[in-house]
Amino acid sequence: MKQKNNFLILIFVLASLTSQAQKATWIWYPGDYEIWLSNQMQNRRTDRGTFFPVFWKVDSHYVLIDFHKEFTLTQPEEVSIYAEGKYNVKLDGQPFEGTPKTITVPAGKHKINVKVFCQENVPAIYVKGKTVTSDNTWLVTFEDKEWIDETGKTSDITATKWLQAGSWNFNDAAKPPSTFKLPVIPMKPAAVEKTQNNRLIDFGKETFGFIKLHGIKGKGNINLYYGESKNEALSEKGAVTIDKLQIASAAKKDSVMPLSKAFRYVNMVTEGTITVDSVSMLYEYADVKKRGGFRCSDNEINRIYDVAEYTFHLNTREFFIDGIKRDRWVWSGDAYQSYLMNYYLYFDKETVSRTMLALRGKDPVTGHINTIMDYTFYWFLGIYDYYLYTGDKTFITQFYPRMQSLMEYCLGRRNKDGLMEGMSGDWIFIDWADKLSKKGEVSFEQLLLCRSMETMALCAAIANEKSDVTKYKQLASELKSKLFSIYWNENKQALVHSRVDGKQTENVTRYANMFSIFFNYFTPQQKDAVKKSVLLNNNIQKITTPYMRFYELEALCAMGEQSYVLKEMKDYWGGMLQLGATSFWEEYNPTKKGAEHYAMYGREFGKSLCHAWGASPIYLLGKYYLGVSPTTPGYETYSIQPSLGGLEWMEGKVPTPAGDIEVYCNKKEIKITSPVGTGILIVKSKVKPTGAESVLKMENVYEIKIEHGKGYKIGYEAL
Amino acid sequence: MKQKNNFLILIFVLASLTSQAQKATWIWYPGDYEIWLSNQMQNRRTDRGTFFPVFWKVDSHYVLIDFHKEFTLTQPEEVSIYAEGKYNVKLDGQPFEGTPKTITVPAGKHKINVKVFCQENVPAIYVKGKTVTSDNTWLVTFEDKEWIDETGKTSDITATKWLQAGSWNFNDAAKPPSTFKLPVIPMKPAAVEKTQNNRLIDFGKETFGFIKLHGIKGKGNINLYYGESKNEALSEKGAVTIDKLQIASAAKKDSVMPLSKAFRYVNMVTEGTITVDSVSMLYEYADVKKRGGFRCSDNEINRIYDVAEYTFHLNTREFFIDGIKRDRWVWSGDAYQSYLMNYYLYFDKETVSRTMLALRGKDPVTGHINTIMDYTFYWFLGIYDYYLYTGDKTFITQFYPRMQSLMEYCLGRRNKDGLMEGMSGDWIFIDWADKLSKKGEVSFEQLLLCRSMETMALCAAIANEKSDVTKYKQLASELKSKLFSIYWNENKQALVHSRVDGKQTENVTRYANMFSIFFNYFTPQQKDAVKKSVLLNNNIQKITTPYMRFYELEALCAMGEQSYVLKEMKDYWGGMLQLGATSFWEEYNPTKKGAEHYAMYGREFGKSLCHAWGASPIYLLGKYYLGVSPTTPGYETYSIQPSLGGLEWMEGKVPTPAGDIEVYCNKKEIKITSPVGTGILIVKSKVKPTGAESVLKMENVYEIKIEHGKGYKIGYEAL
Repeated sequence: MKQKNNFLILIFVLASLTSQAQKATWIWYPGDYEIWLSNQMQNRRTDRGTFFPVFWKVDSHYVLIDFHKEFTLTQPEEVSIYAEGKYNVKLDGQPFEGTPKTITVPAGKHKINVKVFCQENVPAIYVKGKTVTSDNTWLVTFEDKEWIDETGKTSDITATKWLQAGSWNFNDAAKPPSTFKLPVIPMKPAAVEKTQNNRLIDFGKETFGFIKLHGIKGKGNINLYYGESKNEALSEKGAVTIDKLQIASAAKKDSVMPLSKAFRYVNMVTEGTITVDSVSMLYEYADVKKRGGFRCSDNEINRIYDVAEYTFHLNTREFFIDGIKRDRWVWSGDAYQSYLMNYYLYFDKETVSRTMLALRGKDPVTGHINTIMDYTFYWFLGIYDYYLYTGDKTFITQFYPRMQSLMEYCLGRRNKDGLMEGMSGDWIFIDWADKLSKKGEVSFEQLLLCRSMETMALCAAIANEKSDVTKYKQLASELKSKLFSIYWNENKQALVHSRVDGKQTENVTRYANMFSIFFNYFTPQQKDAVKKSVLLNNNIQKITTPYMRFYELEALCAMGEQSYVLKEMKDYWGGMLQLGATSFWEEYNPTKKGAEHYAMYGREFGKSLCHAWGASPIYLLGKYYLGVSPTTPGYETYSIQPSLGGLEWMEGKVPTPAGDIEVYCNKKEIKITSPVGTGILIVKSKVKPTGAESVLKMENVYEIKIEHGKGYKIGYEAL
Repeated sequence: MKQKNNFLILIFVLASLTSQAQKATWIWYPGDYEIWLSNQMQNRRTDRGTFFPVFWKVDSHYVLIDFHKEFTLTQPEEVSIYAEGKYNVKLDGQPFEGTPKTITVPAGKHKINVKVFCQENVPAIYVKGKTVTSDNTWLVTFEDKEWIDETGKTSDITATKWLQAGSWNFNDAAKPPSTFKLPVIPMKPAAVEKTQNNRLIDFGKETFGFIKLHGIKGKGNINLYYGESKNEALSEKGAVTIDKLQIASAAKKDSVMPLSKAFRYVNMVTEGTITVDSVSMLYEYADVKKRGGFRCSDNEINRIYDVAEYTFHLNTREFFIDGIKRDRWVWSGDAYQSYLMNYYLYFDKETVSRTMLALRGKDPVTGHINTIMDYTFYWFLGIYDYYLYTGDKTFITQFYPRMQSLMEYCLGRRNKDGLMEGMSGDWIFIDWADKLSKKGEVSFEQLLLCRSMETMALCAAIANEKSDVTKYKQLASELKSKLFSIYWNENKQALVHSRVDGKQTENVTRYANMFSIFFNYFTPQQKDAVKKSVLLNNNIQKITTPYMRFYELEALCAMGEQSYVLKEMKDYWGGMLQLGATSFWEEYNPTKKGAEHYAMYGREFGKSLCHAWGASPIYLLGKYYLGVSPTTPGYETYSIQPSLGGLEWMEGKVPTPAGDIEVYCNKKEIKITSPVGTGILIVKSKVKPTGAESVLKMENVYEIKIEHGKGYKIGYEAL
């Protein structure tokens, strides 16, 4: 059985390598299309009809790129060349006359160069012959430094840094990268309420897309007020997004709004002699495939999972964005959580790497990512996780210099004590929370910097930057000891929130404490202490955003508090569902009433009712209930530690690079199949498990080795 | 007289300030349009019909820009807004709904912000009200860092670096910067030779523009072979630029070629049934105004001046380029000479600053300018001269950070002895010359670095970067002493060419020696020694490019060798004229014969016959014969030291920021009028000059103070 499976995998690998070599795809300088696309996307935000761009530096693609690859052909072949931009083609350094659409490459070993200039779009090429095809094995540079000296042409190739080309899934010569649009599906409203000049269209749940008006006729104005809530749609002055049309049409015509919007309700107000037959929408979505899943004996949890999944799907677009109504931007802290959810739902690594590249932009670094200090650090943490879940080293080797320069920027902004403190232009965010002090040196920021430097050390090793490994290890270790010497308060049994003027403040907040738990920075004693003194202590300021609840509940899960967390999930996410939420919110404070829930940032409808960070149950249920997580990069090894947390049963899938791990668990039986690596199933059982060989690791804790390709059915008795 | 003049100037200044305040112009982030335009221009080069782009990094504009200015209005006014890109408008921080084309600004003090996103073109705005108008007093940034914290909107304006907007002369709302094209004038050929399917069109002299074919009819191909020489046009395989058209037209039609080209001759070859009525051209030129001028008793010199002027005009385009046939690129070393010529002909400071900005591009610096080490240094030297001639401090204060990062790049590439030595990817150019060694540490490069650091110290003072002043002064002074301790050879009485493996080489070349003369790095004794041991020594390798002849002759002029230089000019530039040149060449070696003159880079017609660096007589005659040059920035003070160099008489104009200085000189009389600053006329005379008060400075040398607005007629007796 095992051997047969390996053989099948081998066949599969060979088949995919062969097909990979012959399948042409559009390629570009890695990171450039990602930046270009994010510029397109982030500049689609409007507020009350006004263009609302970001307030940090955005970068651009390199406009002049050289692509090359060497091929060895057994016979001559005809090769077609497509490009976005003006281009030339060289064979073994000699240019073809003009701008050839096809070239003939003779048999033998040959180097093909294509050089492209494009200002408005990303220089990209698509090359298709029998064996000569464009893919991410081509090398690219933005400066070929190929000069002519007195001796004739001198190509100083060693001076040029060549990267592997970037690509995605643009495999059609006729559809170059610049034409990419998310797909749409026509959808009809669930209900329509009409009055004289008003029509309130309800699409039944939170959704996203382009409103389409059918059969418009007459003269006058049509105003559309979008609402994630009915109240918002009905508030002509308060609705955050609107569309205003001027119409003068004797014949009926249809009209699709130019920008996609978030809404459940649309309030259409007509003026003049306007008539409109009907209103529908084009639902716009990212074509990502669901792979993970979760079902259990508790229907409210199932409903929470479904709404989280839908919330996450709506916010997974060209990039992982924060929320679909606003800001529709790529925010590093928000995206970081989306990466983690993604590993348990889509395992779409392209959306992760694309988002990270868009966030990073280019050198020089002139400010923190999204202007927020913590958001810079989450970017590093995202790379750590990306590598752990996907095992992709290429991303790190290609972009290590961008990691390096961003880290140098941070290190250059430490204060005299080597700590991060807000400087002019830095936004210390942490969380939306009342009276959260950002003064002095905040412990949470030091903690994130420390983890970021650990990530640098890890990546420096992969990028073969040996002196950096030592440097960052050293820096991280120094900062970690400072963290405890400066912020740990023995009386409070907690890390305090900050130091101001060289003195510990009295304030204890959850942030640094909960992160230190799943970063494993605490001793076991400290962990237990902090659980009581902070996490389960109602005197410590409560968290009201799903954003920080993510980490709070993660910390509790990491300490085995799945039963407590399950109740919290039902209270908090269940609470939103009870208020009629069809997607999860940017913030939820159970003490608020009615339309109070819609307000934020001093605006009546300022709050986003569909925010990616609201979808964290996807992650928590996959990682801490099904209990699957990688222990070495790319799931070469991993652990499965199912935890029912009070459920009768649960089942689900967790995606990995090689397929999905399937887990079923009730109080007596655990079933596992896995297509990847070698796992360790950790079973807490009153009795020695049956169905596979197990090793007793401590009282009532057994470990069972999981080999890929085999099915496991383990009998046990839940504690 | 004096007082009246001052009063007139005051009126003029007030009038221009007023008109400036009310005249709207398109504005952008400074440097960005310059980069964008150079990308457009430099990617127009073709070779044998093949797109031929540069081989270094090219940068792009920032795609998202915030523009703002505060105005105080006595009454409300209507303001029109135009933008290249998607934009929003804010009044005192509050956005207008939608994308307003006009806004009303109330009376009182108000801040107007316009924020623009544009990927393909440079974000630019044109704002026109009665008093609210866009000009270079608006402030701009690419990152406004205006974020919202818990307390509501927090605009951390201090964190943002605001620069003054860039502008040029785009004063028409309907003609945004992206639509700019150089003007064209239709021109007819001087002669046409027809055979069966060939037509050789001669435009009478070197020219530049778009070929236009009139009355094309029939089916088949038209091939155009461009030639700066007749030989080139007639060489279908050798012509560097070509155009190939496929025609199938029953009715007569005209066709203008898509790209402008350099040529005197065009060889049109038709195939099939093609007929063409006639061929003309659209002459394309930069609309710069001639201000300087030179005439003298020697007609050959006058002819040299005229051809130099025409050569320079052809190469003065959107930017100062190297040559019009090829490369049509902005090369820093070439451009540096054009700046200097420009100060004596057009005094068009915009073309200088535009060229310097295009060359510099943006951070990060990843290679030398044009990949050439010396060309990086010329960029610094260009700024030194720009400030000296124009007095423009704004350029320096705005772009000092780009000077700084480029210099840091250089300093980071010094070897262990603190010297510049070619590293991987660096091109040490110096000059096109046979067997010119680039090994080890070349003295010429250290010299240029030294001068560049002196420029840094000067500019740091203007930019108020005090610690940099000290730092760069110190570095320059250290390097200067190294220069002499390492390269000065007492036996040879010269700076040697290089040091290899820590040892002086035996080779002496002209480069470092001649630059040290006009940099004033030598003692008077060294100068005299070097004149004999190097400059006038025929055993030292001769210079065959006008590029380095520029400096060679400048050094000789600086030492008073005008008579010798005049003969050299007549030999060298006169030599080209005798060969029928209608513009000056990239290289001229009098020992070559016939069509040998057209070859270069191993190609039969590789040489450019119209190269900017061929135009240096403009500079030499203005600076060293008319003898006018600024001694403090912007001609606040200056010297006029006429030197006939054997001419009977000469007269001319030298432009300054405030108008043209006019000089007439024969052996008995000097006439001067000047509109600017305070000058010193230096007269070498056997007798005490008459007509103005003079001071005897040394034997036969008198100084006369020149006040602006007065006319001087000085009697003297030439030595």
